[in-house]
This record gives sequence, C-alpha cells and structure tokens, in this order.
Amino acid sequence: MQPAIISELITIVGKENVYTSFEDLFCYTYDASFVPVSAENVPGAAVYPGSAGEVAEVLKLAYREKIPVIPRGAGTNVSGGTLPARDCIVMVLTRMNRILEIDQANLIAVVEPGVVTAHLQREVEKLGLFYPPDPASQAYSTLGGNVAECAGGPRGVKYGVTKDYVLGLEVVLPTGEIMETGGRTVKNVAGYDLTKLFTGSEGTLGVITRITLKLLPLPEAKKTLLVVFDQIEQAAEAVSGIIAGGIIPTTLELLDNVYIRNIEEYAKVGFPVEAEAVLLIEVDGDSEVIDKEARKIKTICEELGAVQVRVANTKEEAEELWRARRSAFAAVARINPTIIGEDVTVPRTNIPAMVKEIQAIARKYSVIIAVVGHAGDGNLHATFLCDERNEEEMNRVEQAVKEVLAAALRLGGTLTGEHGIGRMKAKFLPDQLGNVSYQVMKSIKQALDPAGILNPGVMFKE
Amino acid sequence: MQPAIISELITIVGKENVYTSFEDLFCYTYDASFVPVSAENVPGAAVYPGSAGEVAEVLKLAYREKIPVIPRGAGTNVSGGTLPARDCIVMVLTRMNRILEIDQANLIAVVEPGVVTAHLQREVEKLGLFYPPDPASQAYSTLGGNVAECAGGPRGVKYGVTKDYVLGLEVVLPTGEIMETGGRTVKNVAGYDLTKLFTGSEGTLGVITRITLKLLPLPEAKKTLLVVFDQIEQAAEAVSGIIAGGIIPTTLELLDNVYIRNIEEYAKVGFPVEAEAVLLIEVDGDSEVIDKEARKIKTICEELGAVQVRVANTKEEAEELWRARRSAFAAVARINPTIIGEDVTVPRTNIPAMVKEIQAIARKYSVIIAVVGHAGDGNLHATFLCDERNEEEMNRVEQAVKEVLAAALRLGGTLTGEHGIGRMKAKFLPDQLGNVSYQVMKSIKQALDPAGILNPGVMFKE
Repeated sequence: MQPAIISELITIVGKENVYTSFEDLFCYTYDASFVPVSAENVPGAAVYPGSAGEVAEVLKLAYREKIPVIPRGAGTNVSGGTLPARDCIVMVLTRMNRILEIDQANLIAVVEPGVVTAHLQREVEKLGLFYPPDPASQAYSTLGGNVAECAGGPRGVKYGVTKDYVLGLEVVLPTGEIMETGGRTVKNVAGYDLTKLFTGSEGTLGVITRITLKLLPLPEAKKTLLVVFDQIEQAAEAVSGIIAGGIIPTTLELLDNVYIRNIEEYAKVGFPVEAEAVLLIEVDGDSEVIDKEARKIKTICEELGAVQVRVANTKEEAEELWRARRSAFAAVARINPTIIGEDVTVPRTNIPAMVKEIQAIARKYSVIIAVVGHAGDGNLHATFLCDERNEEEMNRVEQAVKEVLAAALRLGGTLTGEHGIGRMKAKFLPDQLGNVSYQVMKSIKQALDPAGILNPGVMFKE
Repeated sequence: MQPAIISELITIVGKENVYTSFEDLFCYTYDASFVPVSAENVPGAAVYPGSAGEVAEVLKLAYREKIPVIPRGAGTNVSGGTLPARDCIVMVLTRMNRILEIDQANLIAVVEPGVVTAHLQREVEKLGLFYPPDPASQAYSTLGGNVAECAGGPRGVKYGVTKDYVLGLEVVLPTGEIMETGGRTVKNVAGYDLTKLFTGSEGTLGVITRITLKLLPLPEAKKTLLVVFDQIEQAAEAVSGIIAGGIIPTTLELLDNVYIRNIEEYAKVGFPVEAEAVLLIEVDGDSEVIDKEARKIKTICEELGAVQVRVANTKEEAEELWRARRSAFAAVARINPTIIGEDVTVPRTNIPAMVKEIQAIARKYSVIIAVVGHAGDGNLHATFLCDERNEEEMNRVEQAVKEVLAAALRLGGTLTGEHGIGRMKAKFLPDQLGNVSYQVMKSIKQALDPAGILNPGVMFKE
C-alpha cells in the first residue's frame, strides 16, 4: 500500500491503530473458514477505527482511491466472509466494543459492533433479560459480525435468528455517509426495511457501527432431555410430532451415528453405539409448563420408538447431557485434522432424506461426513472430516460438498442456513437464486456500492 | 387509455377481466384512507390477472409503454397506498385467491396474494395451526396487501407483524421478470434478504404473486382481562410492569378517556366514565400458565393503582369484554362522520408522554382526538374525529396531524407502525429517515424500477 495512503490512515485513526508490517498483516489472511493461510492474501493495511466518524473517514479515503475494504469483527465466520483481497484495507471493529445502553423497560440494548455476543448475553441476563441468538462462536464472535452474517444457532427453532432481534442500525456507506436505519420500536413500516437488508449483507453494503437490539424477558427455567433412536426417520418423526403437539422446544439438536460413536468413545456418556440418531431437546419457560412439556415429549418419543429417553431432573444432570453435545466436535476432531462444516438447511420433514443423501455421498466419494443439526429448523451441519494436506482426498471432498449443496437445493432447501455465502459459496449462489433474483441482488449492490470497494468477491463472485 | 393498449390488456387477461367504463373505474378512485373519491383519479383501466404469467405480461406492456401500474388487493389500506394515478392501470389481485398448500408438518402455508387474511386463519385453525398477524381489516384484507404493507395488529406485542411470517415470495418485477425470494426454511442466509425488502415495500418494487408463510401451533387457550386506571401513567406503568414480570401478553390494548366515555354511552359495559385509561389484556398458551399469568397481571395492576380488574372466567365473559373493545370505533363514529386513524409508534415507556402530547395538540387546535393503542408495542392510534365537509376544521386537523407526527419522532418513534407511508405520509418520510437513508431507499427503487411505473407517488413524493 502506498505510504501516502498509510499516512492518511494514521491521521484518521492514530498510529497505534494502523498495522502495516508483514508479520502483523499475516494474521488477517484467514478466518474460521477452510481456506489455507496464505502470503498472497496479505492485506495492505489493517486499521482499528474507534468511532463511526473514523470509519467514515477511512471509507471516504478508500472510496476516493478505489481501495477494497474488508470489515472484520472477531473473524469467527466459516464462509470466508472476512478474507482479505490483495492490497486492501482490513477494517477491524473490535475497538468499538461498548454496550451503550440496556433499556430494561423497553427491552432494548444498544451496542457497538465489537461487543462479544456472550458478553452482551451475560450482561442482560443479570437484569433478567435474554438475547436469544446463540451461534456456536458466541464466546468470541462479535455482534457486528453476527448482524453482518445474520448468525443463527440451536435456539433458532423457537427464537429465530439474529435478524429477528435487530431493530435498528447505524451504518457507514461505502461513500463514507453515515445512515440510520429502523429505530427503537418493533413496529415500524416507514419506508423499505433497510435494517433487514443490511442484516446478513456480509459487509458488502456498508459497515455497521451501532446496533439496536430487541431483548426478551429471561425464561424462568429450562429442562433438558436426551432421546436415542435406532433409526433417523424415527428421530425426524419425533421432531415433527413434538411440534405438531404444540410444543416448540428451545433446541432440537440431532446427532448422527458418526457423532454418537465418537462421542461415546471420547466421553463415555452411555450412548448405544449402534443408534442412528440422538436428539438433545431443551424446553424453557414457566417451570410447571416445562415439566408438563418434558413429559409430553417423552411420551411422543417413546410412542415413535425411542430406545432411550433421559430427562434431566437436576441442573447437574442437564449439564451432563449438554457435555455430550459439546464434546461432539472434539470427539470427531480426533479422526482427522481438517474439519469443514457445511450448513445446508431443508424443510424439517426432509431431514431424513437429506441425511440419507449425505450418507450416500460420503460412500460415493469415500469421505467421512458426520452430521449434527438443528433439527427443529432443518439446519444440518454436514461435517467433513479430512486432511487438507492430502490433495487427492481434498478433490473428493470438493466434489462431495458440491453434491451435498445440490441435494439440499433439490430437497427444497438452501445452501446456507446461518453461515452465509462469503467467498466459499459465491460461485454456487446463482444455482440457488436463479438469474433474476441474483441480478436484483447485484443491482442493489451496484446501487449502494457503485465503486465495488466493500468486501469484493464476497457473496458475488468477481 | 389508448384503445390499442386496452385491446392488448384484453388479449392478456380476457375481456371479462378488464374494466374500462367510467362507472366501473370510479370504484377504484379510493381506498380506506382519508382521501375524497374523485373523478380526477379515475384510472385508465382496471385489470384482474389470474396468474403470475398474466401479471408479467401486463407489466411488460406497461413497462414498454411507461404506463403506471397500481397493484391492489381489497383496498383496505389507510395510507393511500392503492390510490390510482391518472390514466394508470389498476391491477387487482383478488382473482388469485387460492390457498395452494398448508403443510402441517413443516408449519408452512403457500397462498396466492388475493387470499383474505381471515380465510387463511380459519383454514389453518381447523388443523390446529395459527397465523398470528391480525390487522383490524383481517375479515376483508388480502394477504398480498398485508405483505405489501407489512400489516400489524394487536397481537404484535407477542407475535410480531407480517414480516415475521413471510418466508418466501414470488414477485413479478416491473420489467415483467418473475423472481423467487427466500424459500421454505426459517433459516436462510443465501444472499440479501429480498423477502424482507419486498415485505412492506408498498407495491413500489414488484407485484407479489405467491407467498410462503410460516405458521405456529395454535395456542391451547386464551384468557382476557380488563383493567381500569384513573391515570394513563398508571396504565403505562402496568404495561411495563407486566412485561418486566416476564409475561408477554398476546394483546395489551389501551383505550383513552374519549373512547371510555363513548363506549360506555354506546354499549353500557360498566366503564367508570372518569377513568383515563382502560387496558384490555389477553394472554394465550397452556391453560394452567395463563391462569397463573392472569393472577400475576391482576396483582401487578392492583399494586399500580388499578381501580377495577375484571378477569373473564368464561368464554362468554371474555366475549363481553371484547365486545367493549370492538364497539370502540362505532362508539366514537357517532360523534363525527370523518375518521382519520394515525398510527404513530413510540418506545413503550413514552406512551404516557405521547398521549399527553396528543391531548395538548387536540386542545391547541380544538379538534377531537381519541386514542386507542397497542400499548405493548407502543403503537398508538390517534383517531381524529372530524367532518371532511368543514374546510376550516380540516385545516386545523391537518395541522394537528403534522404536530402528532412530529411529536412521535421527537419521542424516538416512527410515523407509522403498521399502516405504511402510502401517498398520505410520503412528504413526511424524509423527516423521519434523514437524507442519507431516504436517498438509499430511492436508489433501490431506481435500481429495481428504473422506469418508475410501479405505484408512483407512494412512499416517495413525486
């Protein structure tokens, strides 16, 4: 990057907030996606703005000079949404990490983009409030990144995803103009819903500098059940049966046999290793109701052939069940060093068909795919266990991923339920959207970022 | 309209679906907004397409000839969102009124835009399912119109508004291209959220020809309470207290003293006519829980000074309480022939301040304004009771409306919580949005409707 540009950046954000050495910049060449760290991707500079005003000044400079800008929070996304393009500016928002307001009476929080998700959750819980979206990375991920990616999580089945909680945004446009969207009311139909347009836009339309979030009252209590099925179809029927019974659990997590076997080997939690599926179910709310719901869920699952139903009666028993779920990743990570987590999502009743497709694809390409999923909303994480150093294997994995994506679309689903398109799936996006919808999205990108400086190559293939 | 255009329209949709006589066309010069029926607004033709293909052909013709097109459902909107511009084509979607699918297992309904809201609600309730959005016009309004306006209703506080239930759309763009957005899964982050962009876009970006809606299981039971307060501040505190107590009621309807007096005169339901506020509260869910919630609500309200709490113990008693609410409009309609219903929305805790502002404005301009509101989400319907034949009075009303809108913005609110901008509030939209946001919306309109043929003058002032 030209020294003149660097010195302008230093003038805007201060010397201590601009990084330019190769060693420093190398740290920004990767995120949590499966893309090898590479010297080719080293950006021209990394800047840490401290305010919307500084974000705006950096963007004005970038706009004038046509320099790509890659906004970044904690870099926990798994779709390559924060990978740099060469000689770009990586704009890291983690300095802007204040919770500006928690308004208990109106159930609203106002935060800067760099606030860590779990930090906000802990702070609002102290006040008896609840911020439901729970991406697996919540201990590290930032809310700005959550909004940019429209992050989901296990609680999606009952509580929805990030977009369901974003009431308003402050956004800096690629031109450096600062814009407010939405507001502090749940009902608001004044003009187009720009808040929702920017939520999930993956940093391609603007940089989020302030977020107004809706909160809920914290549920009184929780109850956890673990249910084991011989056949995956029974598990899927149980999911439909529970919901048809009028119960929407907080989570409905599905683990397949690959996970079951590995968790049992690793954590000795008493899973029958021949079982095809385990459901980990949590309900929350009024303590009497959840007892009633847990009994009803037990009955439904037993009628549908569950071979084991464990209801946690104490906090410790619940913790024991969740320990099994949490050990899932560590358990399968022992098999192979490289893990690629897909997140295709299909209508709930197509889960068995999708799991069967994944299993057939795994056999066809001799690759290992474990499946863990948010079964309540059809969001399946097909986890490819491979070794990136094995080129021949990685070619087979690439083919298998393609077929998994195609199968999801055939089954009425989507390429991505919660991870986003990023760079990883940009080439597949037109397959899902069709040409008209794809062109409409590109025309919106063009209208808002005419110079194409924001996150080029993300969402739309260059 | 030129005869050649008319005959092309006839070729597309059939002679029986094109109206061109003055008498017929005069019927399309108004909607439910306060705009006098006028011969000046008579459109050039009204067409009733029967399929997305026919919609597309009409739009291609209109695009080619640069003829404005005004999409219309039942015309129940109150913001002038379906008022014709001169020599335009009014496109009425009510022939496309089939429920295409109710998928019980996946909690999805797929409908054409002309399906009446209450009709879908009845059909899904037969299957134990629930479509929550409940605009006051639900007995007549169409789902296409609900989506175009992002309609809300009393249940918004617990269940959100229309956009929270739209999973996917088929939309015909102004160019005649047919586009799919979203899909059949709740989690879906493949590209920009066009579904949400089109929901609430008031017919300015495309014509909705198919809607995929999320459903919920039907709650087991309901319970209704009516609470009377001497002071409006107490009612507002009770609303906050109930929510802080962890209860989100289905509805939290607030009636002010003007309504209370008139309802009592009209329907003799036993309201204390000096009371400043009545809350009509409904909770739904598990029958044991709602009993518990009703008791808790009663305690909270009494502690905050409620002078009367009536809990309906039977369906008949609940019906009696709702009869009072439903008679509200008829009760105040006796005062004056013209009713203008605003729908400013403020953060919940600003309700007392907003009501006081409305009362002060009413005194200042010697106009009668009654207030009924969805207090749980801060959505207040300031109801102007006037006589459109009295020009002098209408000038005062116009000034008073302007001041009510300005007060809502000062109190951190929005011009419109659920009615939309339409033609009525187009000139006020920049006041709320600020220039940057307004220009971004216009650039999206320009990108998607470059010829500006769809609903010109709606949302953006011509």
